[in-house]
Amino acid sequence: MTETTEQTPHHRHLEHARAQVIELLSRQALELDLLSRSENRKQDVVAQLVARQHQAALSQRLLNFHPADIAFVFESLSPEAREMAWTLVRPERRGAVLLEVSDAVRRSLVGNMQPEEISAVVRTLDSDDIADLVSSLPDEQRQAVLEHVDRADQAEVRAVLSFPDDSVGAMMDLDFIAVREDATLEAVHRLLRRKKPLPAHTNELIVVDRNNALRGVLPLDKLLFEEPETEVGAVMLTQPTYFFTDDRDRDAVDAFEKYDLISAPVVNLHKQVVGRITVDTVIDELNARAQSENLRQVGLSEEDEDLFAPPARSARKRWPWVALNLATAFASSRVIDAFEPVIAQLVALATLMPIVASIGGNTGNQTMALVIRGLALNQMGPQQLRTMLVRELAIAGINGTVWGAALAAVTFGLYRDWKLAAVIGSAMLLELLLAATAGLIIPVMLKRFGRDPIMGSSVMLTATTDSMGFFIFLGLASMVLM
Amino acid sequence: MTETTEQTPHHRHLEHARAQVIELLSRQALELDLLSRSENRKQDVVAQLVARQHQAALSQRLLNFHPADIAFVFESLSPEAREMAWTLVRPERRGAVLLEVSDAVRRSLVGNMQPEEISAVVRTLDSDDIADLVSSLPDEQRQAVLEHVDRADQAEVRAVLSFPDDSVGAMMDLDFIAVREDATLEAVHRLLRRKKPLPAHTNELIVVDRNNALRGVLPLDKLLFEEPETEVGAVMLTQPTYFFTDDRDRDAVDAFEKYDLISAPVVNLHKQVVGRITVDTVIDELNARAQSENLRQVGLSEEDEDLFAPPARSARKRWPWVALNLATAFASSRVIDAFEPVIAQLVALATLMPIVASIGGNTGNQTMALVIRGLALNQMGPQQLRTMLVRELAIAGINGTVWGAALAAVTFGLYRDWKLAAVIGSAMLLELLLAATAGLIIPVMLKRFGRDPIMGSSVMLTATTDSMGFFIFLGLASMVLM
Repeated sequence: MTETTEQTPHHRHLEHARAQVIELLSRQALELDLLSRSENRKQDVVAQLVARQHQAALSQRLLNFHPADIAFVFESLSPEAREMAWTLVRPERRGAVLLEVSDAVRRSLVGNMQPEEISAVVRTLDSDDIADLVSSLPDEQRQAVLEHVDRADQAEVRAVLSFPDDSVGAMMDLDFIAVREDATLEAVHRLLRRKKPLPAHTNELIVVDRNNALRGVLPLDKLLFEEPETEVGAVMLTQPTYFFTDDRDRDAVDAFEKYDLISAPVVNLHKQVVGRITVDTVIDELNARAQSENLRQVGLSEEDEDLFAPPARSARKRWPWVALNLATAFASSRVIDAFEPVIAQLVALATLMPIVASIGGNTGNQTMALVIRGLALNQMGPQQLRTMLVRELAIAGINGTVWGAALAAVTFGLYRDWKLAAVIGSAMLLELLLAATAGLIIPVMLKRFGRDPIMGSSVMLTATTDSMGFFIFLGLASMVLM
Repeated sequence: MTETTEQTPHHRHLEHARAQVIELLSRQALELDLLSRSENRKQDVVAQLVARQHQAALSQRLLNFHPADIAFVFESLSPEAREMAWTLVRPERRGAVLLEVSDAVRRSLVGNMQPEEISAVVRTLDSDDIADLVSSLPDEQRQAVLEHVDRADQAEVRAVLSFPDDSVGAMMDLDFIAVREDATLEAVHRLLRRKKPLPAHTNELIVVDRNNALRGVLPLDKLLFEEPETEVGAVMLTQPTYFFTDDRDRDAVDAFEKYDLISAPVVNLHKQVVGRITVDTVIDELNARAQSENLRQVGLSEEDEDLFAPPARSARKRWPWVALNLATAFASSRVIDAFEPVIAQLVALATLMPIVASIGGNTGNQTMALVIRGLALNQMGPQQLRTMLVRELAIAGINGTVWGAALAAVTFGLYRDWKLAAVIGSAMLLELLLAATAGLIIPVMLKRFGRDPIMGSSVMLTATTDSMGFFIFLGLASMVLM
């Protein structure tokens, strides 16, 4: 958790300052690189002195940045400049910076760290932060970090790591303050004074019974407004929103969004409090979700996040996707092949067929976007699915008729062949109806079979609309025109 | 603002309860509909009695729901059931529910409300909530609501409405507590007691000078821990993150994410405090952004949000998109047309050409997703653009060579024509290089010309990769094979 007391000037100045530092660091990394290749010893000494002065100045500027802004700078630097800049970050802030950078940058930074540096970083972090940190590292790096964690903390870190990635347990914060319901507010006040500063995002204390089971929550402002001799139980909220460690993380995110929460207790199966979820984690989760969604739709993973990862590795990462795409494109191509004699007789068919397929792909994607959104909002029961199918078919019917007629008119204008015009117009109508159906069925089926309804949905849809588009158009043509 | 003290049972029970209520409401709307068409008067009376009993029970269950859950139920209901269910929501909670439902549902609910009902709803809301409420309404509905707002509030509502949609001013909350820096903590404490309950998400008080200009913020826990006679100025944070009313909303969202804020002051050009941003608004904004992004990518707007909007209207909304798609598909089709003589000689070309175009579209979309993400994160300076272009071209080169060779091999297997195989292999390599370039240039150009880099980017990309794919493949074929 980073402190909110860091200097955070207005973002307009900040953007400027960040850009400057990135520029300076990049230039300096280049200079150092040239220096290391230079032959002239004497010139070296002077240049190194100058470089060292620059570094001191830069280090001072980085000092004033919030860890999140340092992370931003690091993500914009080339690997060489990044490595040099890392030495300018003060050791006690490195942990906070590591928590803020993207997974790919984090891996490259940790990979270059010496054991004693790792140990220094780990000492500044809470056990749930350590768990966050190592959860995105490859196994050998993970081991290297865990070795330097205290025995007591290690148990906690391993406990957090043992929860599945998409569970509330994996996103919870272990740092919370619990009080008993028979305590007086005055006693609670004394307890807080001993514990200050309070853990970040402590808007309420968690109230437990003698078995540590959740009883309620006590908003901090009760301490300000109620009489000191009042018992906690008398003024606490008895029905707080809470989560089990094995709830899905997206349920927690949804609840925070709906109920405008700042923090909420997390309990185990015996309803004993084991941690809490705070709103900053929820925001990070929402962001990560939105970003990974856009990349997943085109078959990319967070691996590609680092601009400076070697292209050969990224190229290989995209192979399954290229292979799948080639296979489906070949399948569509076989559909066309089946109609070769028809095309040989009327080459205009080859010219027109991609139009039908392309429209199908695009309108199918529209239906699919609506369905995926509905699935994400849990609003796709059998009743709604039926309503939606009817609705999308109606839209496809209207647009297929109107724009199919337009397409037919243009085709007639070009080829003076009313049969050909009729074929392409009807093909468009049929294709739109089919695309709407496919756009609805594909994500629903993926979800029903327990798969991610987004991942690859677009490839499957395009494969369907392409091959069916060619089949409908060329099939109609061979019936009507031959 | 909804109170967080509402009953919020664990979400597993809640999901079940919500589904039950949706089911019951839907069934009852059907029954009422049948009843209204029935001829038998006597049967009517009995049935109506039963229906009224059901309604009372349902009303009681809705009573226990949080407004956000009532909103969820409403979004899942058909318009008829929705209208009936609205009468079951108690008048004093209708404002809170209206704030939570989607824009489309809100329009339909407000559209059915009587003037006195609107006036009752408006009385329960703060002026910034009223501004939120009406900002998504069509003009005539907006006027109908504003008429019922108090004169004093009206000025505030109009002030908030006057800020551009994507500015901090439009998302700010007018309800905050300001204190002077020379006040003692004891005096502040007395002030708070008079003001309680505190506005939601008050984790800190805003400190101002006599001109109401921002001086700092006072975290609430200072009131708990510091001595009562201390002056505010001595313990306040002097460099809080703050925003100007004309800052872009996404800057505020980014700052909340980076600095883990719960609330932050908003100032006018004279640095006078006029409101604040709270984390719940930020979360709503993040959600709205993620959802609208997915829809915008396929050319849809939030208009299509309501499953039950008339299909004819939604169909028309999609027309510009269909028209654009038809136009670009026609353009690609003209490219093919230019090569008709070549295709007439070798029909296999017609069979194979969609493969090249399809691969180009998909890989171009991958590059584009990475660029759009980089633009969103502000990490696409000239330096990074160059790095990214080189990197994506390298990836395209590797994949084009490897998979181009594979495609050539399969083509040779099918057609026993090594020239044709060489043509399709090289066409794939060239197409991938071109797709990577287009995927990078298109969103960057859209952004440079001040347009939304997402909206329609996918259509433009596919139009480019399709026509260029056909051109490269057929062009190479006409040179090599003819």
